[in-house]
Amino acid sequence: MKALEEKILREGQILPGNVLKVGSFLNQQIDVPFMNEMASEGVRFFSDKAITKVLTVEASGIAFGYAVAAKLNVPLVFAKKSRTSNVSGSVLQAQVYSYTHNTNYTATVSADFLTEKDTVLLVDDFLANGEALKGLAALAEQGGAQVAGALIAIEKGFQKGGDALRQAGMQVESLAIIEEMSPERGIRFRP
Amino acid sequence: MKALEEKILREGQILPGNVLKVGSFLNQQIDVPFMNEMASEGVRFFSDKAITKVLTVEASGIAFGYAVAAKLNVPLVFAKKSRTSNVSGSVLQAQVYSYTHNTNYTATVSADFLTEKDTVLLVDDFLANGEALKGLAALAEQGGAQVAGALIAIEKGFQKGGDALRQAGMQVESLAIIEEMSPERGIRFRP
Repeated sequence: MKALEEKILREGQILPGNVLKVGSFLNQQIDVPFMNEMASEGVRFFSDKAITKVLTVEASGIAFGYAVAAKLNVPLVFAKKSRTSNVSGSVLQAQVYSYTHNTNYTATVSADFLTEKDTVLLVDDFLANGEALKGLAALAEQGGAQVAGALIAIEKGFQKGGDALRQAGMQVESLAIIEEMSPERGIRFRP
Repeated sequence: MKALEEKILREGQILPGNVLKVGSFLNQQIDVPFMNEMASEGVRFFSDKAITKVLTVEASGIAFGYAVAAKLNVPLVFAKKSRTSNVSGSVLQAQVYSYTHNTNYTATVSADFLTEKDTVLLVDDFLANGEALKGLAALAEQGGAQVAGALIAIEKGFQKGGDALRQAGMQVESLAIIEEMSPERGIRFRP
């Protein structure tokens, strides 16, 4: 998505440790009209799938997940990173390793919300090593749901998680794929 | 909002410790078309205010915050509960006591996103003791922004946080106010 690539170049900041800060429009502060455009662009890739739910993980996936679910007119389900008083009864769980925080968390969702009746689109703001997506896919599979594929705002292509999932057969669509990025040389996108 | 009260009665579950579980439509799983209706209803209370941003706190406030920001056509800003690699530079911070988790957290937002140019609408899914709202108002004030008021999906009126904020002069609008709630006697709404 050309407009997203341009926005990343204009507003993004590259921090040490392969961190791309896009807090001015995608995290922290969300450019809502633009995110709605991103969602419109993204759902076109999955127009042949009868998606019943969008699945994401808190917290940074929720806004884009909401925008995508609104376009598809389906519910948004989000996995929590810890079990709280709001999640009770039978649950689905998956261990996810976070490279950003160098720790594991347990993605948790109530078993009521992902069932064999569902065809689920996985949505997240970033894709790097693919650990979060694998966790979301595991939750869907535990619930007996079909995974239609994954829609990502920004993929760090050089971290290979997306390509591994594509090789494993998942339809992974990213609105912008960063092939190379460094504070010195800037950002190069995958054509 | 009558439709919200009916949905709470139909789908809500009262758990021990004054917890109202509305995971089937407001947390965990979000009924996106219904939440868009809630947002439409809610923004009418603030039609006389020139709101420039919606401010909420992760994670459960993000979906409703997004819906409200979309109706107002303004950016959504969300405070993080911990400082991460995505928040850098000058920050605004407020200590918030969470009764749900019986612990303090530090609500943090980049100082770039709340300035004296902003008139901010505070949004959250629940209002009980009002600690989160007070924290959000403190962040806005630190940044020099005006607070237009607060829009809440469900207020636990019996926990008095909303009334205290109203007495202190804040315009607090809740789409449903629970006056009384118990597993035995069910839910009574404020008329």
